[in-house]
Amino acid sequence: MAPGTPRLVVPIDLNSKPWQQKLPLHNRWHPDIPPAAEVKTGEVFRVEMVDWTGGAIKDDDSALDIKTIDLSTVHYLSGPIRISDKKGVPAQPGDLLVVEICNLGPLPGDEWGFTATFDRENGGGFLTDHFPCATKAIWYFEGIYAYSPQIPGVRFPGLTHPGIVGTAPSMELLNIWNERERELEENGIKSLKLCEVVHQRPLASLPSTKGCVLGGIKEGTPEWEKIAVEAARTIPGRENGGNCDIKNLSRGSKIYLPVFIEGANLSTGDMHFSQGDGEIAFCGAIEMSGFLELKCEIIRGGMKEYLTPMGPTPLHVNPIFEIGPVEPRFSEWLVFEGISVDESGKQHYLDATVAYKRAVLNAIDYLSKFGYSKEQSYLLLSCCPCEGRISGIVDAPNAVATLAIPTAIFDQDIRPRTNKVPVGPRIVRTPDVLKCTYDGNLPTTRNPSAAT
Amino acid sequence: MAPGTPRLVVPIDLNSKPWQQKLPLHNRWHPDIPPAAEVKTGEVFRVEMVDWTGGAIKDDDSALDIKTIDLSTVHYLSGPIRISDKKGVPAQPGDLLVVEICNLGPLPGDEWGFTATFDRENGGGFLTDHFPCATKAIWYFEGIYAYSPQIPGVRFPGLTHPGIVGTAPSMELLNIWNERERELEENGIKSLKLCEVVHQRPLASLPSTKGCVLGGIKEGTPEWEKIAVEAARTIPGRENGGNCDIKNLSRGSKIYLPVFIEGANLSTGDMHFSQGDGEIAFCGAIEMSGFLELKCEIIRGGMKEYLTPMGPTPLHVNPIFEIGPVEPRFSEWLVFEGISVDESGKQHYLDATVAYKRAVLNAIDYLSKFGYSKEQSYLLLSCCPCEGRISGIVDAPNAVATLAIPTAIFDQDIRPRTNKVPVGPRIVRTPDVLKCTYDGNLPTTRNPSAAT
Amino acid sequence: MAPGTPRLVVPIDLNSKPWQQKLPLHNRWHPDIPPAAEVKTGEVFRVEMVDWTGGAIKDDDSALDIKTIDLSTVHYLSGPIRISDKKGVPAQPGDLLVVEICNLGPLPGDEWGFTATFDRENGGGFLTDHFPCATKAIWYFEGIYAYSPQIPGVRFPGLTHPGIVGTAPSMELLNIWNERERELEENGIKSLKLCEVVHQRPLASLPSTKGCVLGGIKEGTPEWEKIAVEAARTIPGRENGGNCDIKNLSRGSKIYLPVFIEGANLSTGDMHFSQGDGEIAFCGAIEMSGFLELKCEIIRGGMKEYLTPMGPTPLHVNPIFEIGPVEPRFSEWLVFEGISVDESGKQHYLDATVAYKRAVLNAIDYLSKFGYSKEQSYLLLSCCPCEGRISGIVDAPNAVATLAIPTAIFDQDIRPRTNKVPVGPRIVRTPDVLKCTYDGNLPTTRNPSAAT
Amino acid sequence: MAPGTPRLVVPIDLNSKPWQQKLPLHNRWHPDIPPAAEVKTGEVFRVEMVDWTGGAIKDDDSALDIKTIDLSTVHYLSGPIRISDKKGVPAQPGDLLVVEICNLGPLPGDEWGFTATFDRENGGGFLTDHFPCATKAIWYFEGIYAYSPQIPGVRFPGLTHPGIVGTAPSMELLNIWNERERELEENGIKSLKLCEVVHQRPLASLPSTKGCVLGGIKEGTPEWEKIAVEAARTIPGRENGGNCDIKNLSRGSKIYLPVFIEGANLSTGDMHFSQGDGEIAFCGAIEMSGFLELKCEIIRGGMKEYLTPMGPTPLHVNPIFEIGPVEPRFSEWLVFEGISVDESGKQHYLDATVAYKRAVLNAIDYLSKFGYSKEQSYLLLSCCPCEGRISGIVDAPNAVATLAIPTAIFDQDIRPRTNKVPVGPRIVRTPDVLKCTYDGNLPTTRNPSAAT
Repeated sequence: MAPGTPRLVVPIDLNSKPWQQKLPLHNRWHPDIPPAAEVKTGEVFRVEMVDWTGGAIKDDDSALDIKTIDLSTVHYLSGPIRISDKKGVPAQPGDLLVVEICNLGPLPGDEWGFTATFDRENGGGFLTDHFPCATKAIWYFEGIYAYSPQIPGVRFPGLTHPGIVGTAPSMELLNIWNERERELEENGIKSLKLCEVVHQRPLASLPSTKGCVLGGIKEGTPEWEKIAVEAARTIPGRENGGNCDIKNLSRGSKIYLPVFIEGANLSTGDMHFSQGDGEIAFCGAIEMSGFLELKCEIIRGGMKEYLTPMGPTPLHVNPIFEIGPVEPRFSEWLVFEGISVDESGKQHYLDATVAYKRAVLNAIDYLSKFGYSKEQSYLLLSCCPCEGRISGIVDAPNAVATLAIPTAIFDQDIRPRTNKVPVGPRIVRTPDVLKCTYDGNLPTTRNPSAAT
Repeated sequence: MAPGTPRLVVPIDLNSKPWQQKLPLHNRWHPDIPPAAEVKTGEVFRVEMVDWTGGAIKDDDSALDIKTIDLSTVHYLSGPIRISDKKGVPAQPGDLLVVEICNLGPLPGDEWGFTATFDRENGGGFLTDHFPCATKAIWYFEGIYAYSPQIPGVRFPGLTHPGIVGTAPSMELLNIWNERERELEENGIKSLKLCEVVHQRPLASLPSTKGCVLGGIKEGTPEWEKIAVEAARTIPGRENGGNCDIKNLSRGSKIYLPVFIEGANLSTGDMHFSQGDGEIAFCGAIEMSGFLELKCEIIRGGMKEYLTPMGPTPLHVNPIFEIGPVEPRFSEWLVFEGISVDESGKQHYLDATVAYKRAVLNAIDYLSKFGYSKEQSYLLLSCCPCEGRISGIVDAPNAVATLAIPTAIFDQDIRPRTNKVPVGPRIVRTPDVLKCTYDGNLPTTRNPSAAT
Repeated sequence: MAPGTPRLVVPIDLNSKPWQQKLPLHNRWHPDIPPAAEVKTGEVFRVEMVDWTGGAIKDDDSALDIKTIDLSTVHYLSGPIRISDKKGVPAQPGDLLVVEICNLGPLPGDEWGFTATFDRENGGGFLTDHFPCATKAIWYFEGIYAYSPQIPGVRFPGLTHPGIVGTAPSMELLNIWNERERELEENGIKSLKLCEVVHQRPLASLPSTKGCVLGGIKEGTPEWEKIAVEAARTIPGRENGGNCDIKNLSRGSKIYLPVFIEGANLSTGDMHFSQGDGEIAFCGAIEMSGFLELKCEIIRGGMKEYLTPMGPTPLHVNPIFEIGPVEPRFSEWLVFEGISVDESGKQHYLDATVAYKRAVLNAIDYLSKFGYSKEQSYLLLSCCPCEGRISGIVDAPNAVATLAIPTAIFDQDIRPRTNKVPVGPRIVRTPDVLKCTYDGNLPTTRNPSAAT
Repeated sequence: MAPGTPRLVVPIDLNSKPWQQKLPLHNRWHPDIPPAAEVKTGEVFRVEMVDWTGGAIKDDDSALDIKTIDLSTVHYLSGPIRISDKKGVPAQPGDLLVVEICNLGPLPGDEWGFTATFDRENGGGFLTDHFPCATKAIWYFEGIYAYSPQIPGVRFPGLTHPGIVGTAPSMELLNIWNERERELEENGIKSLKLCEVVHQRPLASLPSTKGCVLGGIKEGTPEWEKIAVEAARTIPGRENGGNCDIKNLSRGSKIYLPVFIEGANLSTGDMHFSQGDGEIAFCGAIEMSGFLELKCEIIRGGMKEYLTPMGPTPLHVNPIFEIGPVEPRFSEWLVFEGISVDESGKQHYLDATVAYKRAVLNAIDYLSKFGYSKEQSYLLLSCCPCEGRISGIVDAPNAVATLAIPTAIFDQDIRPRTNKVPVGPRIVRTPDVLKCTYDGNLPTTRNPSAAT
């Protein structure tokens, strides 16, 4: 007899707020957030999730919701899910949790998403010094394809994936996170010069009670107060996986996650219909609600067997992945290159971040030859299935990074041609993205060589 | 009638030294190095090249040649080749030179290559603080496949490509290079903290008369003396292309290079049988002699049409590429992740270089579970067709970089398994890479959590 | 505002019989079957469908349902769907209907399928002379993957597709079909010698009132009586598309269908989770219920513009297809070859059918070296994503056909090895397929060289 | 030390006739043709070969050489090569010979090829009843790419492969071939009705002393006389491999060939720069001279271990293949379908040959909408990397075959469009193929529905 439809272990009601769901969501990492559900190894189960903002961003005609978003409340995650083997023995610290993504997609009835850049004073993004305004594009789905009224002339199949899959940290690991990020927040600008070039603030998001949602822990209780000041924010990927934003974690992929506490306490969220490597716009994938169908296995003692810690403690590990077999297939790629010389002409030393920033800037400018506004290109390169590579990391002083764009996503041939590109954009791509004003005082980077 | 076999415009005699070739080679970038050959657009022509060291590294049983290599003499390039259109009008500054790689391969009679890491005091590499010794592996070719006696159990098809393709800089561009790299060399350690983490020295290689070879310009002449102190080293990729080490520039690829001087003066060299993204070992591809069959077109005024300068001058541009259609095809990939926390546990800010370093370290340690020495893995990941991605560059403070390894290159299944990996390496991979002692005093990074 | 979820135009209730559905199904082709639904061009709509047998085959432990199936009742199709443009003007004869498959999958709650061979006296199959018994395997789905308890050791991602997509024929086209198939049924055995080699009976399935279901036309009415004796069976693919069983018509594909009557009257059914080229077992895909999300466009006058008739009338055309971008990706294939010499050693003349039969027989025998029963292999090669090619069709007298099997679907390495295969099957694959006895008298082909 | 360049075991001098080569060629299969060379397992060796006609077809402006070709002299093969293991023990009957294609390509200095259809009275082709004239197109190579002055607007990378790789038959196997083909030649037209539809003559090519070349056996000797009347022609693929024309046997592929006589006596020839599945034009690949770099292994007793005979004797086997990893990569395919109804409207029974003929005819007519002559399309579909599939072989009475064309080989978008195709060809593709008159009396098939 058939094992039947995947069991729905975390349901989402699209008409309810994140804090009103049948099973409570959470937006922090902490070992003491209690499991919302429990599954056994070998079982295919279904997890539904709200979009990372929990519905704060609307399918409307304004980017104001992006500009004013309260980032203390994100990301809303489904779980934690406690994992046990068939005999009922839960995953143990030191085990490796194998999570197979059997299927995934948008939540039925909610087939749309958004891509956005935050305001420079409220979130920013990889190029926020060039593009300080909040912008937004809406994407509609036609099965595997997405298109946007704000970025006409492109349509592409999604390489859909969860931005966040992770296990709960132990207190020891949580303390390591909080300490190193606090050190960065406090001393980073003095000691880490990359901050000059990548103008995103704050440097790190430390624990905060503001906006904190802790699943089954009721707000206002002493337990909540204790956990809320300790629990790590979900913004960065870390040793437990988390917000890795690896765009290839799609159907058929496997994730090997370290287990730090009993039961593993798997959480997931931040579903992306599609994302480019780097997710440069920050709110940069096609963000949506969605579902995952997962199957777990436990490799007992697998951390020691397969992961070598790299750092001061045995907890300094990273997950491993296997990529699934059904990615969209593209044959032709146009590739932009960047080297680690910044916009002022300053030479950096083997800095892949600077090199990638320049590759992206080059690509954005290039696409403007074909009728796109720079904001359209910025959002597009953030969410379409483009590939960001570290091509050269040894040829001092220049790191070389590349950004490869699949040409088939455009309705025109965007390759350079011997015949001259027509004066003015070939096809004016209107309307443009939704856009707010930038009202702050932070400096903007201008390209000295840009056409006026 | 057939257009005939590609015309051989730069021949190489494998029995002669680099400085004894029929057409003189060069190892510097300068506008005044005279063209060694001339071709017309539309013509398929053949360029042969020595390996980047000009034969300094031998197919023998020792890494001593690597340890003691004189790096002032590299890379030996073939060219410059002056490009004109069918009417005889040469490429002009502001044009875009389209170079199609119709075919390429090892030089017949020289079907072998090497991968190596330099000594920490003489070249280094991406992980030189972990692996300070000079090491070497020899690769033999069986048609499209390579195998190494020093890294048993792997065999893979090459994604063969030239490490270096570039046009000559104008004096104005050359000055920009020299100034910004001198500034780095002089002040970098103080101002750029990444130097703490990526321990490669020197920060930049400034012009030097030592080892300088300038093609048709005879050494010792006043002209030679003048050029030799100005001419840029070939180590880093720059605005003219150059040492980009983009592993996908293989058969069928197109490169759109900016033209800075009349005739474009195209040079090429540093052929790689195969390379992984990043070329982490520095002497890190499967380095070999080889040939290219090229075809050029000129897009008149194409720099302005297609490249937007990004920086203080109109010369601050980068080439564009199209990837060819015959890359080796792999379906299954095992992916290692790194975040921008360094080996000491210190948090860096969105630093893709640190994240990639950690992804590579994780992969090396992982492969040691399957019987490889760390030096074998380091060389292998540097030269096999693995992919290095910037997966997340916005989730402050952690950049996420990934390294994807095609599992089909191994003769064993390297994926994690529910069943325990046998105690001790499953298959001991001997012999090991060729290795010298490290006799210097520079500090070594040790992983505090590594098994003794 | 979002266009919203695809409109459900044909719903299926899994708890109801095919003839009890809210919108009536049909199992014949005829221009007078009235539309069950209507859609506009540009609209994404959802069509649900029963499996091709309408639930006659069960997820149980016996193949008896296969042996005794009433084939007069198949295939149950959803539709017809009338297509109009945005102004409400319906598709016209001579137009080309563009059907894009935006998405598809199993029906939620019914995630299983079956593969079977019919009894030689009731349906048969490509190899029914070798395998006269009814057999059955059940497949369960884990998201994109399928596995079968009856064929252990394989698991693969589905290249899911509808076996049948077609427009309604005009009366003129219907008459052409009925005439040519009647001629075959009556005279084929005398005139077409291939019948000796491909022992499937009957040669054609002519219209029959038995089992006939005509959508909105009520059984027993004069209209029903008239149509039922004319309406074509759905077994073969024909000029209107229909049962083409092209396994690559998956997500993102486009089908360009000729329009023969006003409104086009699109029907679809026979969903396959996966199928190999040829669908050799006849009930040979992983048969299931399912859904399609479709979007239509109309190319006015497109038949004349794009399709050249090939035959006595302008109606002798065939559809055109574009393949979608998200097919499962396999790198390694083991390929079996057949030539047009039959099992008795008789030479046939450029006969691709005979050659393909031999390629399949070769593959089945090969897999039996690895522990599979021949019935397991027969079903597996029928439903897994293997590729059947016409490799050579001119080298008289031998056609060469090939069958390529992706090796990654097996949990063992099935490639030939220099080391001897162990005596006896390497891994006995039990249990076997569900199997009935063959009680008929038709001759069986035995391989004279087979081991006893 | 490096194993060195592949040893050249069969050299070709392009300035000599086939019968004047240093090592004698042969154009028949017979066990008594003596080995021309000998190699050991594990050794990479190089075999050069003339084109299949031995230089009879010229790079000129006429198809007259095609029309008048003497087909009794083909195919000229290089070898036989005797294979022994490292201890010197030759391959034995019953072994499996593993041949890996490490590399291949055109012969340096001879980078061109031709595609042609024979005159209907002298060779014919798959569609010779529609296209009875001899035609020819010349292809020039630019590295991996080919283009033809006679078929403008297409350029594509080659999936280069040898049309013929085979071992020598034993006398017993040779007798089986000769008997079954003689039976066909004598009685085929009476007994095999496919001959009505596929108008290629003769049905089989029996042994003939005319044109016979037997390697080291000197013409005119008694031995030559004996062998020449027995030796099989090389036209069809058979149990020994031979003229399989499997287009995917390119770089990195492995072929598992049965061994019938001591030493295996491997022969190869008929190099193709590129070919479509089916090689429909008969002289239908891009035919060229070329080289192979091969490596052999022997699986002792491998025939019994891996090949099950299918037919009256243990010799009725077929080779197995593994496909290599570097095939050209295409993402977008336009697919044409055919069913087993012939041009007269007659219904055939599950006949994949008839179905494929119709798919090809459909594709040819389609391409004529885009400015190509039908002869251009016929030659193009014969030699470009298109895929011919047996999609459905069970849905009686219609076999469904498909022909998939990669759209990227064209310089225009050949997909159907909602906007009307311009009246008249969009781009007239001139010049046309080289073409002779047909002066014979055999009937021509006309499409009754074709435009006048």
